[in-house]
Amino acid sequence: MLKGNMLIAHGGGPTPVINSSLLGAVREAKRHPEIETIYGARFGAEGILSGDMIDLGQVSQENLDLLAKSPASALGSCRRKLTDEDYPAVLACFQALNIRYFFYNGGNDSMDTCHKIHQLAVRSGYELRTIGIPKTIDNDLAVTDHCPGFGSAAKYAAVSSLELAQDVSSLPIHVVVMELMGRNAGWITAASALYADQMPCEHLVYLPEVPFDKVSFLRDVQEKFSKGRGLLVTISEGIHYADGTPVADSGVVDGFGHKVPGGAAQALSDMIMQETDLKSRAEKPGLLGRVSVALMSDVDQQEAEQAGAYAVRCATEGQSGAMVGFQTVRQPAYATELCLIPLEQVANAEKKFPPEWIGADGCSIQPAFKDYCKPLMGAYDSRFSSIR
Amino acid sequence: MLKGNMLIAHGGGPTPVINSSLLGAVREAKRHPEIETIYGARFGAEGILSGDMIDLGQVSQENLDLLAKSPASALGSCRRKLTDEDYPAVLACFQALNIRYFFYNGGNDSMDTCHKIHQLAVRSGYELRTIGIPKTIDNDLAVTDHCPGFGSAAKYAAVSSLELAQDVSSLPIHVVVMELMGRNAGWITAASALYADQMPCEHLVYLPEVPFDKVSFLRDVQEKFSKGRGLLVTISEGIHYADGTPVADSGVVDGFGHKVPGGAAQALSDMIMQETDLKSRAEKPGLLGRVSVALMSDVDQQEAEQAGAYAVRCATEGQSGAMVGFQTVRQPAYATELCLIPLEQVANAEKKFPPEWIGADGCSIQPAFKDYCKPLMGAYDSRFSSIR
Repeated sequence: MLKGNMLIAHGGGPTPVINSSLLGAVREAKRHPEIETIYGARFGAEGILSGDMIDLGQVSQENLDLLAKSPASALGSCRRKLTDEDYPAVLACFQALNIRYFFYNGGNDSMDTCHKIHQLAVRSGYELRTIGIPKTIDNDLAVTDHCPGFGSAAKYAAVSSLELAQDVSSLPIHVVVMELMGRNAGWITAASALYADQMPCEHLVYLPEVPFDKVSFLRDVQEKFSKGRGLLVTISEGIHYADGTPVADSGVVDGFGHKVPGGAAQALSDMIMQETDLKSRAEKPGLLGRVSVALMSDVDQQEAEQAGAYAVRCATEGQSGAMVGFQTVRQPAYATELCLIPLEQVANAEKKFPPEWIGADGCSIQPAFKDYCKPLMGAYDSRFSSIR
Repeated sequence: MLKGNMLIAHGGGPTPVINSSLLGAVREAKRHPEIETIYGARFGAEGILSGDMIDLGQVSQENLDLLAKSPASALGSCRRKLTDEDYPAVLACFQALNIRYFFYNGGNDSMDTCHKIHQLAVRSGYELRTIGIPKTIDNDLAVTDHCPGFGSAAKYAAVSSLELAQDVSSLPIHVVVMELMGRNAGWITAASALYADQMPCEHLVYLPEVPFDKVSFLRDVQEKFSKGRGLLVTISEGIHYADGTPVADSGVVDGFGHKVPGGAAQALSDMIMQETDLKSRAEKPGLLGRVSVALMSDVDQQEAEQAGAYAVRCATEGQSGAMVGFQTVRQPAYATELCLIPLEQVANAEKKFPPEWIGADGCSIQPAFKDYCKPLMGAYDSRFSSIR
């Protein structure tokens, strides 16, 4: 039994349920007497480097319970990517605070950080249990069936698109282009098509996995719009031409060196108005797609909480150097088991949206994805009145 | 007792609860034997002019019941503004179908249409009971305390802003500018400040009622951001400079001759990045702000239903040439009574956001508005975990 303190930190952009993983981890940690102080790093790597920590054992029960319905990061997160020079300082911090259990809750960049900390601890002979807790709305972590955060982001995309389709069809005077999050992977945008069969208007979907072609785009838009039911176009923020040029480029680069796309929906909407005689407008819920409590998936919330608890349990059982993963079956019914995946298999790896789930036309989604995705969204009643 | 058929039509942009007014009107109409066929015009004025109608008495009970949770317009709406040449055709349609009860569910443009139809019927000696049912997310109809549709749009703005503030504060690396609907009136954007006291980040609000000034905007943004908590800026789509130039202009004019603003949030976000050393991003939920079922206000939904029923009841009692209005008290408790307002008092009139509810700094909202607005939003639990 390894006695010592625990540290949990958030990395990268928040999700609706990252706080649920925190809740699961803290609740589980309190059950293990070998875990003494439960620290939370304020603002991720920033807090680790500066020693800015919260004693989570002192947080009121009310605030802990509220975590399950609080979006964004209650600890604070960061986009700072640790450099090779930073790692010794991290280890020094862990030694000074006697951190023996470390949980990093993040996406593939964070799993890389987690992996490097684990390797450094091993090399230094410092006994540390390091487990990654997956978190990403983008669903782009390798090996695992899906990631906490995605179910809620998918529900937001699916429900918002279905609702928007009602609006579009009731006043079918223009094309509506909606931009959803996803720089490199189209998982969230694909979810916008989950209720395409029930939409009272036409629908086109453009993912970053399919090179954007202006000529076929304008042809598809005009053909669909001509049916007179209205047209909803949903796109990933990161869609780009075959040569890699983003459809919209803000010119800004983030802390990880990733290019920040500009307003792709506005760019396509302007393109439609300039090149056709159609009217068009652009919507970009942006960050709203990762903070909605009302559209949080109950399945996602519960799984996120379980992932946090599982990470702590595995660490107390002696595991280290791994990320919590999900092994899922969907037939005869949806069932998920938690497992551990070696960090080197997930660090920096990126799982794109599978080509076989994209329609041959490049702008629709196959039913197989719907079977994959719907259970992750949890309970939702998609019935709307249809009297026209 | 005036025997004959009824016609109900939707005008202008939908709201989350316009279908609730339809439900209230149809349910009430079924109670009055003098109302024979209950017609709904498909796509508003378009359906009236072309005779494209639905027999609402034949709609299944399931579809009727679903109206209360179906956003957008189940009948279809339009932006077509009737011309002087159109009105005789409308009257001819009414005569041909023996329409004796006419309900137009819309905003101030629609109330003008309603008023003209009423006047023409009176001049022509055609017995017609014409009642307007108010509908606008913008809350800009005159005389009435508030309008069905606003409570839900306000809830969307308030809750989305509070949730977004959690995200902004947990990764306080950039300014986030969110654009909300409202071309001329700032009611919806003002609602984004309802939970400003609970926001974990700084907040600035810009309404179209206050001329936009670039110098003070950039000064306020830098000052607020420097506090290190993150900054959320919420703006109306229609904000403009003192000379009337929109902050963003798409160059497009809609069917009523109104200029359609472009992406004001993106324009301000770009301005921040160009003129300061801050990073910024823009969000524009746009139409999503008027279709969310999850953020529909229960009070708004019930009042919309009551307004539809009240319109029909008043018409059967012999009233005509009026719009349903709301007389509301908020002390000692929120209570609303329905009333009738002569159409000439509301046709084309526009109620701006009151200057006394705007802070002296021009970018904050006074508590008096919060007292006015919160009851309209119905039930909502605004508690989030706070452990930082």
